[in-house]
Amino acid sequence: MKLYDYPGAPNPRRVKIFLAEKGMDYDIVNCDMSKGEHKKPEFLRKNPSGKLPVLELDDGRCLSESVAICRYLEMIKPDPNLFGKDAYESGHIEMRNRQIEFELWSQIGTSWVNGPIVAKMGLVKSIPEAKELSDANVRRYYERLDHEFSDFEYVAGSRFTVADITLLTAVDFAAALVELKPDYSLRNLWRWHTLVSGRASVE
Amino acid sequence: MKLYDYPGAPNPRRVKIFLAEKGMDYDIVNCDMSKGEHKKPEFLRKNPSGKLPVLELDDGRCLSESVAICRYLEMIKPDPNLFGKDAYESGHIEMRNRQIEFELWSQIGTSWVNGPIVAKMGLVKSIPEAKELSDANVRRYYERLDHEFSDFEYVAGSRFTVADITLLTAVDFAAALVELKPDYSLRNLWRWHTLVSGRASVE
Repeated sequence: MKLYDYPGAPNPRRVKIFLAEKGMDYDIVNCDMSKGEHKKPEFLRKNPSGKLPVLELDDGRCLSESVAICRYLEMIKPDPNLFGKDAYESGHIEMRNRQIEFELWSQIGTSWVNGPIVAKMGLVKSIPEAKELSDANVRRYYERLDHEFSDFEYVAGSRFTVADITLLTAVDFAAALVELKPDYSLRNLWRWHTLVSGRASVE
Repeated sequence: MKLYDYPGAPNPRRVKIFLAEKGMDYDIVNCDMSKGEHKKPEFLRKNPSGKLPVLELDDGRCLSESVAICRYLEMIKPDPNLFGKDAYESGHIEMRNRQIEFELWSQIGTSWVNGPIVAKMGLVKSIPEAKELSDANVRRYYERLDHEFSDFEYVAGSRFTVADITLLTAVDFAAALVELKPDYSLRNLWRWHTLVSGRASVE
């Protein structure tokens, strides 16, 4: 199978960490977003949404959306388990993963889209008011996470799951490219970050 | 089990349709969002995000996030299958569900938050520019869906799945409360809407 990737992009990174956790082999195909290759007809046939990552199976079928790709991989290679072992744990991990996506990732995305790097690309008109609000939401959410990590070692409890990959890639992207690094006073959040960043799967 | 609900809210509606498809029994607890009951300490112990729906199990454990609740329900009652029968179908349904959530629901949400009803509540400051952009994105996505429904009967292909519930509740909310009813020229989209709205599970 082939993974369409763009180095540095956070969503392909989620899938690459997941694949490394599973110990699965795959080929990388570089899709140069800086040249708009993800919006060209050939790529849009693989993913009409024009986004990375895409997983192309050996029979030519394609899957997109990071978590959808990861769920497919979990089903073809169940160990180590990253999505939950029983009904409650599966629901709980899905809940935690979605909270990170809808309450943190979405706000980081708004800050990114309305920030200086995207403005320079000239693709969309920045809305500074929207960025102010999302910046504040991100900082507030970091505080909630710091509080939660005083009780739990990982995002969904006592073990590493897909929800940790979602949070790690969000925080690293926010810190590197959106000027939203968590404050160092948030010690529980940083304790978690150091723990997860040290895994062999994380690059 | 108990479902914390607020009549008319689109996310609890997703879970109610899912439960009806499964033919499962449950109790409804009304949480009056107009009185801010979803932000009170007692409710925040069930869901720290302060959002509906919440599913409370008989042992007191709680799950939130509509799709997380539905996934739990799918695992305790697998038939009829709504999340996929094999690895590829599961990945494909997850992908379609997420496309609707991240590309359509998110934009409807932006239009709602920056629209007149929320402005009247005085909870957040409206950003008219953000609404203009999200309104346009919603309309463009309806056109994409109309095109897709010329090839497929349901959101994820040839059968009804959780992704149809996600789209139906999005479109109905957008039409009723955000003044974003799809144009009647989008005949394939309306054909799908009539088909899905006619199911016994849909209220």
